Amino acid sequence: MTSKQVSSGINRRALLAGAAALPVLLGLRISLPAQAQTDPLASWNESAAKQSILDFVAAVTREGSPDFVPVPHRIATFDNDGTLWCEQPMYVQLAFALDRVKELAPMHPEWKNKQPFAAALEGDMKAVAESGERGMLELVMATHAGMTSDEFEKIVTEWLAKVRHPRFNRPYTDLVYQPMVELLAYLRASGFKTFIVSGGGVEFMRPWSEQVYGVPPEQVVGSSIKTKFQMRRDIPVLFRLSEINFIDDKGGKPVGINEYIGRRPIAAFGNSDGDLEMLQWATKAAGRRLGLVVHHTDAEREYAYDRASSFGRLDAVLDAAPINHWAVASMKDDWKRVFGFENVR
Amino acid sequence: MTSKQVSSGINRRALLAGAAALPVLLGLRISLPAQAQTDPLASWNESAAKQSILDFVAAVTREGSPDFVPVPHRIATFDNDGTLWCEQPMYVQLAFALDRVKELAPMHPEWKNKQPFAAALEGDMKAVAESGERGMLELVMATHAGMTSDEFEKIVTEWLAKVRHPRFNRPYTDLVYQPMVELLAYLRASGFKTFIVSGGGVEFMRPWSEQVYGVPPEQVVGSSIKTKFQMRRDIPVLFRLSEINFIDDKGGKPVGINEYIGRRPIAAFGNSDGDLEMLQWATKAAGRRLGLVVHHTDAEREYAYDRASSFGRLDAVLDAAPINHWAVASMKDDWKRVFGFENVR
Repeated sequence: MTSKQVSSGINRRALLAGAAALPVLLGLRISLPAQAQTDPLASWNESAAKQSILDFVAAVTREGSPDFVPVPHRIATFDNDGTLWCEQPMYVQLAFALDRVKELAPMHPEWKNKQPFAAALEGDMKAVAESGERGMLELVMATHAGMTSDEFEKIVTEWLAKVRHPRFNRPYTDLVYQPMVELLAYLRASGFKTFIVSGGGVEFMRPWSEQVYGVPPEQVVGSSIKTKFQMRRDIPVLFRLSEINFIDDKGGKPVGINEYIGRRPIAAFGNSDGDLEMLQWATKAAGRRLGLVVHHTDAEREYAYDRASSFGRLDAVLDAAPINHWAVASMKDDWKRVFGFENVR
Repeated sequence: MTSKQVSSGINRRALLAGAAALPVLLGLRISLPAQAQTDPLASWNESAAKQSILDFVAAVTREGSPDFVPVPHRIATFDNDGTLWCEQPMYVQLAFALDRVKELAPMHPEWKNKQPFAAALEGDMKAVAESGERGMLELVMATHAGMTSDEFEKIVTEWLAKVRHPRFNRPYTDLVYQPMVELLAYLRASGFKTFIVSGGGVEFMRPWSEQVYGVPPEQVVGSSIKTKFQMRRDIPVLFRLSEINFIDDKGGKPVGINEYIGRRPIAAFGNSDGDLEMLQWATKAAGRRLGLVVHHTDAEREYAYDRASSFGRLDAVLDAAPINHWAVASMKDDWKRVFGFENVR
């Protein structure tokens, strides 16, 4: 990245990335410190996927380029599960729901004879999966509603601090993909505003998204249940109801992007068929665009699953990638390391 | 505002306010340019309302102060109609809907015999008002749905460029309150992120909010209708459906703040009973908070309406203000000028 490109990419977010940009704003022509010249995508191998990211960012941030995009329109949207953090052996939020079912079971003796609760209590994941979308919704409603939004945030935060991933024996928030965290930071340093657009529950992600990804709560879009405003003895609360408000998946992702962000992204990042429409919405429009699909090809360092995972399909998005010129990042081939706690290999 | 306060209020948004902040970031101790020392609230008289704003901002931005609030938590939410721009003789969006009814009438001969459309076509505003919330919804559905989101944005933009306010003979976007525009900028320069939280339609406000208020589309929360993602000959569109998605009014405002922003504001600004719950949600919590109610007391320069307007009530919020220590800004007494095109009196 040349200093000219840095200059044209400057905005309020770029400034956060460090003092490197300040001399430019002040009109000083001094050389950039070494820090700004280190590889912003150090955990990526020098392959086609990395090059497509670098080329895209260079094109949209270079003033005078036919592909130049003004800072306010540099919107990038990221799926979460399987794109920014590990979604195996099950969605983290499902693990949370199953733990909550166990915790709440003494108050619900009827769950012993009612699916999918009985399966959840017995740890029969096959039966849980077979309960389908309806079963998942029942689990979510029973475990995510019936408290205030403040209480729910506390429950999520305490659970994440306590629980470990069954294979890696680390907090789930350690299992975020280091190359993607670097990509988020690189885009922000290039004047992008980064958003999460996830099928997961928005109030499950917001308590930790800023610390883990640098994405503040107001830039997290997700699925939600309805809440109701109440005054309790002169204290206002938002009470979480057992009613779906919005499902931010598949065709719901462009809908959510329009509703919650109100601008069309010029770059989108996903890994499953739930991200297909978001990738279409971001890339099938005039001007330079970037779509990228994370491909889980590394059973050794993470998981290898192709075309179908236990809770979602990947067929359509992998088929659509070459047709639409979306980059595909193979974990095994394109990433020097998957998690931040690994050594670079 | 002392230079110490400026320094502690600095963040990425403050930087946008101008180069005044840069020396501080660079660690230089030079005096601030004259620009930064001019009154940021120049259109406000030196009265209690202005002082309560200055005291609040000083308290939450002064590092070491017991009331200090870190930058990411400096969230301020503003109602739009009657708080940031003129809502008389009717909501601007209603004027838009009525014009659209007239434009679409040739395709809807049945409207001549159907309320509230017949009243709208005859300009009988009393009958339109009497059709109540249900009538308003019918007008909105008939005029705001049935096109793509891109098409709707174009319709709104062209209408606003063309139409003039019946009394002031100016574009509606000229009829924003200069003291409130200064307040938005002052808060941003003090490290706040400013949001609009309006009962009005979100896609009616987003096309012009950034230019007029400095509030980007992704920081506008409002009412909405449902949209549906469609692929039309390989081109993705969002189609606007005749179905209410969310009403961002009264108890819906805290719900919308939680859903779309995900952080609780520490300051809120409104003018009608539709803003009561937002003001409660922002102010009835631990820590220093600011609530402010704009009071329409100036028939000469704007409008004077107390307790009830044609399309909304003001009783509850005016009664609640003294009890909750919310500031009340009287247009007549507290504002040197109402609109930017006026001379300061």
